[in-house]
Amino acid sequence: MAIERTTSNISQEEEEKENRMSKTEESTERIFESKKVPTWEKQLTVRAFVVSFILGILFTFIVMKLNLTTGIIPSLNVSAGLLGFFFVKTWTKFLGKSGLLKQPFTRQENTVIQTCVVATSGIAFSGGFGSYLFGMSEVIANQSHEANSAQNMKNPSLGWMIGFLFVVSFLGLFSVVPLRKIMIIDFKLIYPSGTATAHLINSFHTPQGAKLAKKQVKTLGKFFSFSFLWGFFQWFFTGGDNCGFASFPTLGLKAFENKFFFDFSATYVGVGMICPYLINVSLLVGAILSWGVMWPLISEKKGDWYPADLSPSSLHGLQGYRVFIGISMILGDGLYNFIKVLGYTLFGLYRQFNESKIKGDVSISGNSPPDLPSLSYDDEKRARMFLKDQIPMWIAIVGYLTIAIVSAATLPHIFHQLEWYYIAVIYVFAPALAFCNAYGCGLTDWSLASTYGKLAIFIIGAWAGGSSNGGVLAGLAACGVMMNIVSTASDLMQDFKTGYMTLASPRSMFVSQVIGTSMGCIISPCVFWLFYKAFGDLGVPGSEYPAPYALIYRNMAILGVEGFSALPDKCLMLCYIFFAFAIFVNGMRDAVGKNLARFIPIPMAMAIPFYIGGYFAIDMCVGSLILFIWSKINKEKAAAFGPAVASGLICGDGIWTLPSSILALAGVNPPICMKFLSRSTNIRVDTFLNRS
Amino acid sequence: MAIERTTSNISQEEEEKENRMSKTEESTERIFESKKVPTWEKQLTVRAFVVSFILGILFTFIVMKLNLTTGIIPSLNVSAGLLGFFFVKTWTKFLGKSGLLKQPFTRQENTVIQTCVVATSGIAFSGGFGSYLFGMSEVIANQSHEANSAQNMKNPSLGWMIGFLFVVSFLGLFSVVPLRKIMIIDFKLIYPSGTATAHLINSFHTPQGAKLAKKQVKTLGKFFSFSFLWGFFQWFFTGGDNCGFASFPTLGLKAFENKFFFDFSATYVGVGMICPYLINVSLLVGAILSWGVMWPLISEKKGDWYPADLSPSSLHGLQGYRVFIGISMILGDGLYNFIKVLGYTLFGLYRQFNESKIKGDVSISGNSPPDLPSLSYDDEKRARMFLKDQIPMWIAIVGYLTIAIVSAATLPHIFHQLEWYYIAVIYVFAPALAFCNAYGCGLTDWSLASTYGKLAIFIIGAWAGGSSNGGVLAGLAACGVMMNIVSTASDLMQDFKTGYMTLASPRSMFVSQVIGTSMGCIISPCVFWLFYKAFGDLGVPGSEYPAPYALIYRNMAILGVEGFSALPDKCLMLCYIFFAFAIFVNGMRDAVGKNLARFIPIPMAMAIPFYIGGYFAIDMCVGSLILFIWSKINKEKAAAFGPAVASGLICGDGIWTLPSSILALAGVNPPICMKFLSRSTNIRVDTFLNRS
Repeated sequence: MAIERTTSNISQEEEEKENRMSKTEESTERIFESKKVPTWEKQLTVRAFVVSFILGILFTFIVMKLNLTTGIIPSLNVSAGLLGFFFVKTWTKFLGKSGLLKQPFTRQENTVIQTCVVATSGIAFSGGFGSYLFGMSEVIANQSHEANSAQNMKNPSLGWMIGFLFVVSFLGLFSVVPLRKIMIIDFKLIYPSGTATAHLINSFHTPQGAKLAKKQVKTLGKFFSFSFLWGFFQWFFTGGDNCGFASFPTLGLKAFENKFFFDFSATYVGVGMICPYLINVSLLVGAILSWGVMWPLISEKKGDWYPADLSPSSLHGLQGYRVFIGISMILGDGLYNFIKVLGYTLFGLYRQFNESKIKGDVSISGNSPPDLPSLSYDDEKRARMFLKDQIPMWIAIVGYLTIAIVSAATLPHIFHQLEWYYIAVIYVFAPALAFCNAYGCGLTDWSLASTYGKLAIFIIGAWAGGSSNGGVLAGLAACGVMMNIVSTASDLMQDFKTGYMTLASPRSMFVSQVIGTSMGCIISPCVFWLFYKAFGDLGVPGSEYPAPYALIYRNMAILGVEGFSALPDKCLMLCYIFFAFAIFVNGMRDAVGKNLARFIPIPMAMAIPFYIGGYFAIDMCVGSLILFIWSKINKEKAAAFGPAVASGLICGDGIWTLPSSILALAGVNPPICMKFLSRSTNIRVDTFLNRS
Repeated sequence: MAIERTTSNISQEEEEKENRMSKTEESTERIFESKKVPTWEKQLTVRAFVVSFILGILFTFIVMKLNLTTGIIPSLNVSAGLLGFFFVKTWTKFLGKSGLLKQPFTRQENTVIQTCVVATSGIAFSGGFGSYLFGMSEVIANQSHEANSAQNMKNPSLGWMIGFLFVVSFLGLFSVVPLRKIMIIDFKLIYPSGTATAHLINSFHTPQGAKLAKKQVKTLGKFFSFSFLWGFFQWFFTGGDNCGFASFPTLGLKAFENKFFFDFSATYVGVGMICPYLINVSLLVGAILSWGVMWPLISEKKGDWYPADLSPSSLHGLQGYRVFIGISMILGDGLYNFIKVLGYTLFGLYRQFNESKIKGDVSISGNSPPDLPSLSYDDEKRARMFLKDQIPMWIAIVGYLTIAIVSAATLPHIFHQLEWYYIAVIYVFAPALAFCNAYGCGLTDWSLASTYGKLAIFIIGAWAGGSSNGGVLAGLAACGVMMNIVSTASDLMQDFKTGYMTLASPRSMFVSQVIGTSMGCIISPCVFWLFYKAFGDLGVPGSEYPAPYALIYRNMAILGVEGFSALPDKCLMLCYIFFAFAIFVNGMRDAVGKNLARFIPIPMAMAIPFYIGGYFAIDMCVGSLILFIWSKINKEKAAAFGPAVASGLICGDGIWTLPSSILALAGVNPPICMKFLSRSTNIRVDTFLNRS
């Protein structure tokens, strides 16, 4: 999914740049010839996992904050690689000076760190803390006013969340391990993000690369500090509801009412700098279409299309149009892309199968040396290293079966509404879907994990039956099981690609991913728990952490179980229109060719502001604008330091949430409220204050 | 005066730099050899005065804003030179391309523009719109609660202000014209600001200088736009009292109550970048000493030292301590420097007289070629050009006498309280004082205009007798007469120095100064009138334009006329202490030598925040800090572009006051109030707003 998780979505420009790079300096491996590749056990150092643990916590905070604010999560791979390099490099330099250094810092070790950190923070996304898992809670259930019986609710609690994640998060890894040779060497899938990360790590470890990396880290550090201090400064002025910079009516009060304002969020300015221009523009177009045009028009029908006396958050009123039209666009886009990627997959498989039939080499994990006729020096060396350390087939099969059985036995105890045979059915189909997702991701760089999750919501929800049977909860839980499997599968394959290009062993990649996932299964629920306890109004619309997707996911589950009875007047018609619109626009984008497609917005991106408003789209466009101007002034510098600046902004603001939530837990409230009043209200307030 | 007008106070560093420059590139005039110097009539072009008029309005706005906010006015000479160059250069380039250019742009013309602009904006300072003249008004009189009978008040009105300025502003020019040869050629006075401006103009007109100047102008333009837009943006959020960025409790609410906050004023950040570090630090030290320590301590004596039921603005309460302790420090510092500069002057004159006696050449404006034994090529050429165009002695004498008679006849009609013989006495002594000031300024770069003005307040005030006779108003008016004479005298001599170094004719300098002064006599009252009409609360403490010096000057006049009966308990004692303290600190600064004096604050600067608080000192220190860090990163760039950035910030914010006052006059009020409430107040306000 491009939007719900842009982790694996790298901008086209960068991709092209990477391609150019690999063409011009054909033989990266010749440069590294002199450097010995350590054995796979030696790639897995203690220091690597200590650093991964620290960075994992940092990134989990960031991803969690993004989950709970808008649900847009940018790629953190580059930051992970960069910070991992910086930490271990400082460490080894320090040890080297004191004469205690036993093992030099290699790019393989760097890849291990990057893999582990991404795996850890990946759980913060696939754990559904901003979507299906939080959608089960009482606070979200009470917003949709439907199916909010005890049967269909399950409030978060540290214990069951950790248990749930442990039993579902490892299946994906085992399901795709046997396919790595086919995907990476035989099919030569691109995995743009994995390739880009590998280029980055390789460039760090060449001598002149390290110099650039150091400068990048310095820039990142500067903007990290700035962003952290800015978050700290802002905090002082948020002593009350609608106080502080996040409620700054930058574009006027009228625009503010319709959620158009710049909210001074360093995070989203950074996110905007990382996301492709098209995504940012799509968001803005969506915001203007919805909050600028449609909602004002629909709100004029108040009392006609929907009752006038509803609370603003009722799904039977305006809020219903916002949520369900958004959902239908997301589903339309998801359906289109699912069919498209499935088509590519089947066609690609068909071709590959035909080709290899001719060559007579279809071994799934054959130990025989591969047939490499026209390979470059780099590819040859990489393939040799990649095939050296094997992971036996039986480990994958035994691992998958064991975990599947444990999982099917345990899950019904966590969710009573989820029968064991639902789980068994999911686990039968899961490996196929995991393969589909990993393959599609390799081709297009889009992980469709949340689309598979939505599929599970509708199928299992319908199977489990009406809301009185707890179908809503069953659907959400099934979504979680499915999402975790397909998401970790594509992540692992990306990492295999990175490992392939940095000569890291598949074994060390796998172990690193397992350890990272385990850390994530503990860190993510703890971080979520901290947010949940520290900020009392988690998930409340209009609050600091509205967690927009939690309500969206829950409503999808309700739709799946109960049908369309919950929708207000004309809403269903509008949903059909926007469902069709999403498919049509996607079709257009594919039909007109790459050049023109750059100017057609992406429906998935347009749908997000439908529900939460345009403010973050404006932040992101500001980020885009900064990068655009910077590129005009100095293209090379912008390309080299843009991601560092963006990462610094995101990380600094993200880590500020740690002290901020601790302050909230300790009951320390900000002292000042920066309030924005219209002139007439201000006169009334002044009179009131002078009187009393 | 260093603080009330830093116009002629250039930082020591710059001065040293200039000296170094003139040593290394000894023969500036050889570089310019090929360029013909136009006759003095040709130096005075129409385009020069059109540009001067436009820039004069710009700078008058800036100076007026500074007058009315804190009274600290930085050097605008550099901006005037820079912008003058830019305007005419663009103009001539454009004309040159179209083939219509008749006369190339010379450095002499540039000097004419600079002289004219500085003369125009100088009136905005010496006109006393922030001090003596506005101190006569009703709004200020009502604040001091003493001597506010109709006899001692005169509200501003366009007619009499223009008349008053015209009859007093030209005397200074005529009084020092005959002395130009003695001061510039015989005494070789330095006039650091004049010298620096001349270097600047010379460097612009050498080929590589123009390139740098263009870059500087570009930087200036960028920061001008930024500062203007920032002012515009801020405006939207000031829809009420204590609203907007100017009331931002940046350092917390407690600090805000004691006037410690950063108020986001681009002007004062810019001013801080131009003023020497020592001034900024002195301001901050003064703010901490007064608002951080003394006022909180004195306010604890409420009900003991002074009645507890007074209004906060009453001079019998805390406000009295603030104003009178500030005044006594200013007077102490003024007295010390007056005696010091007078000493220098007398000693210098004595030595010069002795030396020339030996040489036998004491002609005041002799037409005989001067005796130049060991002069450099530059000096020789400059002296020749300087002496070529003479201004006959009789013009100066006739001019002075005519204006003096007209003035003595007119002034009593404007101020009934001012008898014609007071004026006659002032005019007898004025030329001597004008000479003293011009000489002292040439030596030390300090114009003591406002100290001479204060002298006039006390002498004429005491002579005119008690407040029932209108002594307060007579004192203030006399202050204006005196200040205008001595201030324009030193300005003219600075310009002669600039003209000397750029080969501009003294005649064109004189004419330019006369024209500039005339423009100033019309522009300044009009601009003040715009402020006065547009912002209803001009001069009210705590408002956007408190005009702090207006009250200070009025209170000095009251003190002079009525003695110390108005002061609250223990205030007189504290005044004596701080008067002595100011003299002591100044003595220390002179005793310990230049190296240590850099670390001893200037009492004059410390006194300003005593009355208005420390917020602008914080702004200025932020400016200092920016420049300091910039210098650490890139010293040359900071030196070359720092003044351009500062000028841009000051000019942009300054010119924004033009549309802002027009909006206010048109009755367009800002729509939003950005309000800062404590958390507890915010809860009350929220309850109030929800209830109603």
